[in-house]
Amino acid sequence: MALQPDRRELGYEQTLMYGRYRQELSQFAKTEAARQKEEQKRQKQLDDEFRQYRGTCCYTVKSNLIWFRDFVFSKIGEDWIFLALLGIIMALLSFAMDYAIAKFQTAQVQLFTVLKGSPFVQYFAWTGFPIVFIIFSTGFVHLVSPNAIGSGIPEMKTILRGVVLKEYLSFRTLISKVIGVATSLGSGLPIGKEGPFVHIASIVSTILSKLIVTFKGIFENESRNSEMLAAACAVGVSCNFAAPIGGVLFSIEVTSTYFAVRNYWRGFFGAVCGAFVFRLLAVWNKDEETITALFKTTFRVDFPFDPQELIAFAFIGIVCGFGGALFVFVHRRIVDFNRTHKRVSAFLMKNRFLYPFLVSLVISSITFPLGLGQFMAGELTQKQQIDELFSNTTLGNDPSATIDEENKYKPWHRPNVFVTLGVFIVMQFWMTALAVTLPVPAGVFIPVFTLGAAFGRLVGECMAAWFPQGIHTSDAVINKVIPGGYAVVGAAALSGSVTHTISTSVIVFELTGQITHILPVMMAVLIANAIAQLLQPSFYDSIIQIKKLPYLPDISHAGSKTYEIFVEDIMVRYVKFISWLSTYADLKELLDTSPKLQSFPLVDAPESMILLGSVQRSELECMLEKKVGLARRLVVVADRKRSQGQSQPGPSDRFSVVSFNAKSDENNSQQISIRDASDKDATGISLSNLELSLNILLGTSPRTSPRSSFSTQGMLKRFGSRDSILSSSTDSLDGSKKKPRVYKLPIGEFEDMSTEEHEEWESEELKVQLDFSEVHIDPAPFQLVERTSLHKCHSMFSLLGLNHTYVTTLGRLVGVVSLKEIRRAIERSADSNNHSSFRRSHRNEPQNIIQAEGSSS
Amino acid sequence: MALQPDRRELGYEQTLMYGRYRQELSQFAKTEAARQKEEQKRQKQLDDEFRQYRGTCCYTVKSNLIWFRDFVFSKIGEDWIFLALLGIIMALLSFAMDYAIAKFQTAQVQLFTVLKGSPFVQYFAWTGFPIVFIIFSTGFVHLVSPNAIGSGIPEMKTILRGVVLKEYLSFRTLISKVIGVATSLGSGLPIGKEGPFVHIASIVSTILSKLIVTFKGIFENESRNSEMLAAACAVGVSCNFAAPIGGVLFSIEVTSTYFAVRNYWRGFFGAVCGAFVFRLLAVWNKDEETITALFKTTFRVDFPFDPQELIAFAFIGIVCGFGGALFVFVHRRIVDFNRTHKRVSAFLMKNRFLYPFLVSLVISSITFPLGLGQFMAGELTQKQQIDELFSNTTLGNDPSATIDEENKYKPWHRPNVFVTLGVFIVMQFWMTALAVTLPVPAGVFIPVFTLGAAFGRLVGECMAAWFPQGIHTSDAVINKVIPGGYAVVGAAALSGSVTHTISTSVIVFELTGQITHILPVMMAVLIANAIAQLLQPSFYDSIIQIKKLPYLPDISHAGSKTYEIFVEDIMVRYVKFISWLSTYADLKELLDTSPKLQSFPLVDAPESMILLGSVQRSELECMLEKKVGLARRLVVVADRKRSQGQSQPGPSDRFSVVSFNAKSDENNSQQISIRDASDKDATGISLSNLELSLNILLGTSPRTSPRSSFSTQGMLKRFGSRDSILSSSTDSLDGSKKKPRVYKLPIGEFEDMSTEEHEEWESEELKVQLDFSEVHIDPAPFQLVERTSLHKCHSMFSLLGLNHTYVTTLGRLVGVVSLKEIRRAIERSADSNNHSSFRRSHRNEPQNIIQAEGSSS
Repeated sequence: MALQPDRRELGYEQTLMYGRYRQELSQFAKTEAARQKEEQKRQKQLDDEFRQYRGTCCYTVKSNLIWFRDFVFSKIGEDWIFLALLGIIMALLSFAMDYAIAKFQTAQVQLFTVLKGSPFVQYFAWTGFPIVFIIFSTGFVHLVSPNAIGSGIPEMKTILRGVVLKEYLSFRTLISKVIGVATSLGSGLPIGKEGPFVHIASIVSTILSKLIVTFKGIFENESRNSEMLAAACAVGVSCNFAAPIGGVLFSIEVTSTYFAVRNYWRGFFGAVCGAFVFRLLAVWNKDEETITALFKTTFRVDFPFDPQELIAFAFIGIVCGFGGALFVFVHRRIVDFNRTHKRVSAFLMKNRFLYPFLVSLVISSITFPLGLGQFMAGELTQKQQIDELFSNTTLGNDPSATIDEENKYKPWHRPNVFVTLGVFIVMQFWMTALAVTLPVPAGVFIPVFTLGAAFGRLVGECMAAWFPQGIHTSDAVINKVIPGGYAVVGAAALSGSVTHTISTSVIVFELTGQITHILPVMMAVLIANAIAQLLQPSFYDSIIQIKKLPYLPDISHAGSKTYEIFVEDIMVRYVKFISWLSTYADLKELLDTSPKLQSFPLVDAPESMILLGSVQRSELECMLEKKVGLARRLVVVADRKRSQGQSQPGPSDRFSVVSFNAKSDENNSQQISIRDASDKDATGISLSNLELSLNILLGTSPRTSPRSSFSTQGMLKRFGSRDSILSSSTDSLDGSKKKPRVYKLPIGEFEDMSTEEHEEWESEELKVQLDFSEVHIDPAPFQLVERTSLHKCHSMFSLLGLNHTYVTTLGRLVGVVSLKEIRRAIERSADSNNHSSFRRSHRNEPQNIIQAEGSSS
Repeated sequence: MALQPDRRELGYEQTLMYGRYRQELSQFAKTEAARQKEEQKRQKQLDDEFRQYRGTCCYTVKSNLIWFRDFVFSKIGEDWIFLALLGIIMALLSFAMDYAIAKFQTAQVQLFTVLKGSPFVQYFAWTGFPIVFIIFSTGFVHLVSPNAIGSGIPEMKTILRGVVLKEYLSFRTLISKVIGVATSLGSGLPIGKEGPFVHIASIVSTILSKLIVTFKGIFENESRNSEMLAAACAVGVSCNFAAPIGGVLFSIEVTSTYFAVRNYWRGFFGAVCGAFVFRLLAVWNKDEETITALFKTTFRVDFPFDPQELIAFAFIGIVCGFGGALFVFVHRRIVDFNRTHKRVSAFLMKNRFLYPFLVSLVISSITFPLGLGQFMAGELTQKQQIDELFSNTTLGNDPSATIDEENKYKPWHRPNVFVTLGVFIVMQFWMTALAVTLPVPAGVFIPVFTLGAAFGRLVGECMAAWFPQGIHTSDAVINKVIPGGYAVVGAAALSGSVTHTISTSVIVFELTGQITHILPVMMAVLIANAIAQLLQPSFYDSIIQIKKLPYLPDISHAGSKTYEIFVEDIMVRYVKFISWLSTYADLKELLDTSPKLQSFPLVDAPESMILLGSVQRSELECMLEKKVGLARRLVVVADRKRSQGQSQPGPSDRFSVVSFNAKSDENNSQQISIRDASDKDATGISLSNLELSLNILLGTSPRTSPRSSFSTQGMLKRFGSRDSILSSSTDSLDGSKKKPRVYKLPIGEFEDMSTEEHEEWESEELKVQLDFSEVHIDPAPFQLVERTSLHKCHSMFSLLGLNHTYVTTLGRLVGVVSLKEIRRAIERSADSNNHSSFRRSHRNEPQNIIQAEGSSS
């Protein structure tokens, strides 16, 4: 049916190639349309059969169900369903992983207990267990997707800033991360899972939204995706801790710079769904009697603390502030050490498993319960540690403790609670910093949280020992000091200071299920944050710096200088631009001299410099390629040959008709026949058709979007190397360079110009003025004024996710500011106290008349 | 000393007026400089005396203290100190007001108890008490500052959006609001104080930052002020409920659209300071034993609720969602009724106190404890109501209740708890909606919160009656239903649905000091929000609509249509512009034909329409005034006269020298002497001087900032009406209109042109091309592209606080979009389901080839 040529389109039929092209496309379209029609028909038939088979009632129910689904989707909104799904999936994932990790961790302890009596075997079992897990995790992650290494929060921060990190949210990475986290946490090393969970949730959200797109074309919107990604981060934290509110706030603090209140509910809804299912699973699994907090505490509600104890809480805040900064510093030094010592890093790179092996050996040796581990409660898992640090009784010499409690808290009593806690804190500190540098998926939150809890507990135990009857004993009622409350405060303060977040305070309330210590916690967290922010960047920002991710640092809180630095002080004045009057030669030079710039401003003329828009590099390259690229050159050569052939009539021997695909039937085979037509019009069509098909073959369609267009050269290279469909027949290796090259393409064999011809032709072509008619120009690039303050500039870049902006005055382009300049300016303003270098020496404001007059008299 | 003319400036001396002017200014400057020098000297002397008197040691201490203060300020940062101060002041204020309000409220009950035995006297006392308070509050607020009326949150939302509401943050308003809130809440009517407190905190913050500016010039920055204002809102909520976290989140949700995470800590710090001091005051005042929550609950921690009870909690959420929407609807209907019925509103306007009188009479009659009040716990204050609704025991027939408890909860038992709660809910509902419309400072949060608690309690009591042994009774342990938990859920859900916030859930945790019910609360709040947001705007947005405040509505959550509407669909294509080539006549026409536009785009030429910048209306008016205004006209007349006088030598009789202020000495008296100089240069100076002084007198300095410049006409009018210094001597009322007018100015008497002359001169002048050399042009107004989606456009406007933006294509101005268009587009897209009117019929994208081809075949 498709073989009958449409008579009305006979005009096209004469140039076979183009005709073929159209014919084929239309053929495809027809087949496609027919197929769709067929399918619809079959579907209808099926429906009819269905109806006949199942009766009318059933069909009505079915169609009603479909209608209901559509109605629910349109009324309730896809967002709700999407978020609920995301929450439920993450909760299931979190529960399954928790289950696996707990099994792994207890397996180590059980193995240790079983082998009682032979300390050496015990030692090998105790250390071998984590080594195997970590080595497996390292290898697996390395093989499947190295993107899964590390926390994931720094990368999510960068992605939410608008930077595209390829492969970071792929399914492969998900697999890698899930298995990697389960095994590396199962090893029992002090690493956490809240960062990885943020990453996992983001991947699940991305995959889910792709799935929904395929079945309902709604989620195609870019900004919607990023909104969902932000919500996914919240869901990740929330499922981890069963802390919906704290999770949302933590994810906002950690990943965002500016935050749309409009999207607030998204995070909450997803987080509540996640936390709800997560805790419900625990109930169904008979772990818990009902839905309660993860690390439930039972502190006295009526008198949680005396106002005078606030001094001790403030002390915890101060120490945790310094401690958090020290932790970030130590972590960075370990990374730097591995990096700067070239020999070390080269050695470690070669023996990829050596570093994980050594680190896990050292850490597990230290925690070995018969060695140093007995002085630091080494046989407890992370969850047990936190549970016992938050416990209500005094770990010290509590005469009222039952034997059960005595046994439970025995690990902390060797030799006594103060020494044990002290050793635990010191060891845990550097062990955590070391473990987090391992090339496995590893978070930092929970180990730091435990560390903070231990420190708080230590202070609490000291207070309890100091005031055995409580502080406020004037009344008959004795209100003892609650050391568990101190542990809660310490945990919130240290995790807050390491991550530079305030929402850890909310997380502890949700984790413990008690909010009685709200004021001490808030106070300590704020103090710790203030100190840590003065001294060091947050742990995540530190990783961003280490990884050199493209992220804009935040303006420091006290940085009033940023109001006094202006765009004109930091902008690049020597802007590379393309003008409406430029020639192709200018364009070529521009592209050659600035290989790194990805977009160029377009001005009307070099004299007036009125900014018209911005053009992508790829667009310009495509433009140049179309003018002097291979495809066009071949066409020109063909044109010349043809005109020569016109003067000497006869079959063109250069354009030999080559059957490209011998196996395919005649309809699909590619044929070239240049008609010897004398009328100009037909020739024009023929040429343009040739050019078009060349373009299509070479992958440089003039209409392709900027992202999908490649340079022809690169395309040719790939073509050649892969399939060698396109082969240049410059086999003559002798000096005869003037001999033109011949290209073999799927559609035929083409002769190139000789080098001389080529140069001459190209220089001629390059003199032509640019033709912007088919170029995609961004007609309103972001613009600033010279007197915009750095502070405002920073806000703009953060808010709108800009990479660069043009500086204009009265429409004239005067400069350009990119992320780099702003980053450098912020760093300089933060580093140096004197900002004289930024400030202009002369200001435009009229001088104060009074002063001027007064001094002149 | 000032009388000696500087010989070098003798060139200026010849034209006395200008010389005078300079002389005087310099004289002032000299005096000022001398005064300052003197003062410094005296200060130093004082310091010296100080040192002599108190000894060196003391001086060292003092200087060290000053150094310390500066050091602290520079190191810790002003922000911290500022926020701490703000928190403490607000806490003190809140505590004092709470104290006063509690005293007022108990006084009413006490009065009622004292008068026992005579029901009529009791009735008059019970109703008279609130009437007096409300009438006083109405009168006081009306007299001092009517800005204090209402909640304050809608206005703060508008102010934080960037709109300047004059007088809204003045000291006068503070006084009015504080006294107004204290008295209106003291009346016992169901109104709240969280909205007013946000307003009060904002005013305190504004005043405080002004104070700090005067003693340290740091807080001059605009954006810093708005950051502090946002923090102040958080402090306001926090001091009210002693809920720092919930306060911060509530204020963010209620006031912001986009939120800078950078400023997150500000709110927290201020809020913690406030809440801390607020609760510490309670401890010091012996109200509380230690720092605890405001409405402390003591629910069972180990088994707070059974998972199956979640269905009941979800039910509460659904009902509260509808209830919240209904409340907003009823409130708006009451306001609309008062407004639309012209006779009613006119009558109420005339008798300002009638409406408050009637409302408070009705409400207090209903709550009268011997009447209907006995069926709705009418004798309890708001605080008592909440306390008892949150109580742990069952209000119903609890056999285990002690006699104390029986007595305490007696108000809820007449006739039984279900009827009492039912009557309470129904009455409280409309009474609150009515009370909030009173012209006094009144919030809505706490009454709605109480209402929600009552509804939750009702459901809880029903559940307790239905399952007397608890739901989960398979085990030996009986876990009874806790009705108090239901009350907490209901309170959070209803207040959340009325205000459209999720953070009410956090507030209830902080208020009750227990977080056990986190999942039910979050679930109910989310459900209530989802329903309420579908049906009605939030209470605050409703007030914004009622008051017609300039605010951009938020895009509805499910509004995916906003992605499909583009700027080109809503923009105004017929843009009024001024071009670089325009004449003064064009300018005059432009200003006359568009009296409402406040700024105009500046393009290079009407043909090319390249956007160069934006010019304020005032600048253009000033420009026109300078060209053809009165000042210039008088100068021109003077010039003409002078040149006539030059041809006919002799004293100019028109320019009579008039001693303006006879009482002042000769130095200050104004004299005009036009020198008969023949050299062109001197004349020029003389003329420009005359013009300058005229300009100064008439208040149209060419250098003044756009805001401070008035039109000369208006200035003249004011001059004339107030002091009649400037009097036009067109006393001749007869037809001789050709006679020129004569203006008497402080600096002399000037003759105007005749009408004909004037017209001729003006039309001549208006033909001149515009001179932009002295005009302030905004060189980079915000620009968008035609294909920007409404969603992105809305984000931009919200983020950057824009009022309008230009739409450009390749630098060419093609349209303008203002707040109005966007608001209308959002409303239309929300209202109508079919958005076909917005969508363009033709799209630029190439049509799908497959479809096109398939259909053609």
